[in-house]
Amino acid sequence: AHAETSVTLYGIVDGGIGYQQLKGTVYDDAGNAVDYNGKRTGMINGINSANRWGLKGTEDLGDGLQAVFVLESGFDLGTGVSGQSLGNTNRMFGRQATIGLQSDAWGRFDLGRQTNIASKYFADIASPFGVDFGQAAAGATFNSAASLRYDNMVMYQTPNFSGFQFGVGYSFNANGSQQFRDSGGDDPNTHAWTTGLRYANGPIGLAATYDQFEAPETLPVDGGVKVKSWNVGASYDFSVARLHAGFGQTRNGWFQGITFGDLDTAGALMVNDGMRVNSYTVGVSAPVGPGEIMASWGMADPRGTAGDDEKQNIYSLGYTYPLSKRTNVYAIGSYAKNVAFQDDLKSTLIGVGMRHQF
Amino acid sequence: AHAETSVTLYGIVDGGIGYQQLKGTVYDDAGNAVDYNGKRTGMINGINSANRWGLKGTEDLGDGLQAVFVLESGFDLGTGVSGQSLGNTNRMFGRQATIGLQSDAWGRFDLGRQTNIASKYFADIASPFGVDFGQAAAGATFNSAASLRYDNMVMYQTPNFSGFQFGVGYSFNANGSQQFRDSGGDDPNTHAWTTGLRYANGPIGLAATYDQFEAPETLPVDGGVKVKSWNVGASYDFSVARLHAGFGQTRNGWFQGITFGDLDTAGALMVNDGMRVNSYTVGVSAPVGPGEIMASWGMADPRGTAGDDEKQNIYSLGYTYPLSKRTNVYAIGSYAKNVAFQDDLKSTLIGVGMRHQF
Amino acid sequence: AHAETSVTLYGIVDGGIGYQQLKGTVYDDAGNAVDYNGKRTGMINGINSANRWGLKGTEDLGDGLQAVFVLESGFDLGTGVSGQSLGNTNRMFGRQATIGLQSDAWGRFDLGRQTNIASKYFADIASPFGVDFGQAAAGATFNSAASLRYDNMVMYQTPNFSGFQFGVGYSFNANGSQQFRDSGGDDPNTHAWTTGLRYANGPIGLAATYDQFEAPETLPVDGGVKVKSWNVGASYDFSVARLHAGFGQTRNGWFQGITFGDLDTAGALMVNDGMRVNSYTVGVSAPVGPGEIMASWGMADPRGTAGDDEKQNIYSLGYTYPLSKRTNVYAIGSYAKNVAFQDDLKSTLIGVGMRHQF
Repeated sequence: AHAETSVTLYGIVDGGIGYQQLKGTVYDDAGNAVDYNGKRTGMINGINSANRWGLKGTEDLGDGLQAVFVLESGFDLGTGVSGQSLGNTNRMFGRQATIGLQSDAWGRFDLGRQTNIASKYFADIASPFGVDFGQAAAGATFNSAASLRYDNMVMYQTPNFSGFQFGVGYSFNANGSQQFRDSGGDDPNTHAWTTGLRYANGPIGLAATYDQFEAPETLPVDGGVKVKSWNVGASYDFSVARLHAGFGQTRNGWFQGITFGDLDTAGALMVNDGMRVNSYTVGVSAPVGPGEIMASWGMADPRGTAGDDEKQNIYSLGYTYPLSKRTNVYAIGSYAKNVAFQDDLKSTLIGVGMRHQF
Repeated sequence: AHAETSVTLYGIVDGGIGYQQLKGTVYDDAGNAVDYNGKRTGMINGINSANRWGLKGTEDLGDGLQAVFVLESGFDLGTGVSGQSLGNTNRMFGRQATIGLQSDAWGRFDLGRQTNIASKYFADIASPFGVDFGQAAAGATFNSAASLRYDNMVMYQTPNFSGFQFGVGYSFNANGSQQFRDSGGDDPNTHAWTTGLRYANGPIGLAATYDQFEAPETLPVDGGVKVKSWNVGASYDFSVARLHAGFGQTRNGWFQGITFGDLDTAGALMVNDGMRVNSYTVGVSAPVGPGEIMASWGMADPRGTAGDDEKQNIYSLGYTYPLSKRTNVYAIGSYAKNVAFQDDLKSTLIGVGMRHQF
Repeated sequence: AHAETSVTLYGIVDGGIGYQQLKGTVYDDAGNAVDYNGKRTGMINGINSANRWGLKGTEDLGDGLQAVFVLESGFDLGTGVSGQSLGNTNRMFGRQATIGLQSDAWGRFDLGRQTNIASKYFADIASPFGVDFGQAAAGATFNSAASLRYDNMVMYQTPNFSGFQFGVGYSFNANGSQQFRDSGGDDPNTHAWTTGLRYANGPIGLAATYDQFEAPETLPVDGGVKVKSWNVGASYDFSVARLHAGFGQTRNGWFQGITFGDLDTAGALMVNDGMRVNSYTVGVSAPVGPGEIMASWGMADPRGTAGDDEKQNIYSLGYTYPLSKRTNVYAIGSYAKNVAFQDDLKSTLIGVGMRHQF
């Protein structure tokens, strides 16, 4: 932590004021359908970017090779509580905990906990909101791109070849420490693969990703079921505006739910054998003076869920304005219908806030 | 974390050796009165100042405006455990988590979790011990000034006008994430206001504060009851010594209990409809060579508690001596009678320690 | 966190890939003996050195005296979860939390949570693996040297006199905040002493340590039982290789278990009145080019355990190779028989990894 430092301390602090509503039919703890019209006007935080602080470093090992590490912690600015829980535990470095090697010639290898390839490569290309802005994020429609994080992962990403980059990761157990497997017994671990390709050069952005996890064999009913998701996205910058579009399919479950109002959809790494969801999005972003305006539509079209199988539609409009290189203000409005495929369940988010990067 | 840093890492480490006793009639888990004479001789910590580490930063936005943030974490030096829990969770940044804007011309606006105005403005003026030194702190007598912290708060403080400063804060939910409220249903949140004025110029210090919280409407019995507290304090520096005095009233409950021996009084934000407490304190501090000696008396006079309604009296004597600009040693002795208004329950604290700021 | 900083941010990040096996007879939750052959191939971490980050600082107080503090946090790189739990709580600074004074003339005094003297003085001299490399560590055979940490400790260590150093520490309660003791009642605290001497000069290393803790008097059966352990170790550097040897005895219980495969042995500070364990180790380390090779054998010979009383033997071989001053790669192989004194229970660890210090 001095001038010849070997570690960088960094983070993002993001807070604001907002209005949220969840309205429609929900199910209480006993499973009964009840009419609900929940509202909240108050402090919001982590909307533009999730709150975080972290330690990272790079050391030259010679021949262009570097040792690298990232330790990144998430938190809620309203309460100061850590995010990214594991069971009843709040993780210390829930956003990322990796050690690795990188070089311009050979690419980058990381070991530890981090986000999957779809969140890294697809989200920013398919949507102007990327992984940010709550229910406006690409991940609300494409669940494998919803800032999904895997524990115990090995990940390799190639160097950037004229705009092309390929990445692949494998997790020995996606959520929690890898368990021992008794010889001849069922595997208690959730194995996961994540892979993808992106091309970003001049005005063009392209991404294709594939994710798969296998439910623990020890699960009573769905043990060993493979949940799969692939996504393709494209963007083109016409200077006056950048267009974004994406398509994807998810089969047999759900990778990562997101929060609509006070409804957390589906948890993470949930199996629903036979479920099929097709996801679509188009979006646009455009510079407005020094700021930027963003708009998107996303639809997730389900078959074979246990519920209503209604199409979830999300319409979002956002604006960011830089106060400086590291600080900006933002406004967001987003309206979602048939949330979590439930007939006529609606979620509204309206907010303004400030984000500071350090 | 290098020379052109945008973040400052800071903290306080405080530990020592002490003797504590709690003696008198206490109530066991079954509610039976039992004689108790609990003693502890051993390590104490966080007596002069609570242990903490934090990250803070400031960025100039032009025209005298600055973006500011504070992330501050509390911990116990004896065990390394985080402080400021929320239910079963230990908060990461339990002392403060805010983002804001400030300027010399317009004052300071903050959003997030932080201490209330009474703890900021009143405690240091009414008592030479301020918010520090355990049961000697102003907050042991004036419960709304006991380092009370609110979640989800918006706070505005004016600039310092010739010594005058005014502040006001509102919390959408004082403890935990703000809950959604069903339309037509009761509000599950604890709303809180905190406001006050202070004047500090030359030898004179004056403070007046008002705090109010409203119990969640969803509480079975006390839902919606408003708990209120106002305090006034003054200090004058005669050079040879600084005199401190304070008076306050609390109605219908308790904002923040403190720890006497191993008794945590009353928890935080407790309702006791009809309870009335008047609080009084006088104190003095005086330089003794490079060090300082501090003495205070505080009395909280209750009516309408469920218990004994006995006057709680606290007599405290302390001394600090600087070893350097950032390190000091201290000694503290404090005796409290009728602790928590219980007849003849006595608490003694005697300790010496060292405090280091970084 | 800038050039004139008063705090240093530091840490170690360590991860790799490994194979682990635990094979033999184990006991299920109902206490029944079952055949088990648990295997795990996947990410390992904290093998060469446990993962950690911390804050530390030193301030000159004049006359050669310095104020010192260390706040050190442990974590799992695979999941980002904090280590060193206390009950259901993950400690923030579980590895160390101390404030103190030091001088070249008077030595060092620390107050707070830290490792005991056997872990500091004995482990590195008796074994080439010291406190590191999982089941290869000295602590797997000498349980009082297994990175044992005490809460609420006062510790004094002399300066280094021509290679001699003496240290002694006392903990008011070894695990968790010190409890109050009712007058005339049983003491609910675990008091612990740790002391030792080491001599390190030129090629010679010698260490002798003694540890003792007293079970809380409030324990129903074993209250007040004193568990004791002493160790002696020696090493000599023949340039071509350094030889290590150690002997020790533990009586009436166990200070700190370690993890063999997915078996956590015996927990921490466990009483087993009448249990006697003699511990032996020999080891060797030798430079191989810029790297180092290490090998050791350790045996713990029990009497009076409730179980099989079989001799636990551990055979370990390791290698480290520096990629730079702060980064190294390593390989480890270790085989243990009669793990935790259970007949024919075997544990295997094979792994390679990378460690980076910042």
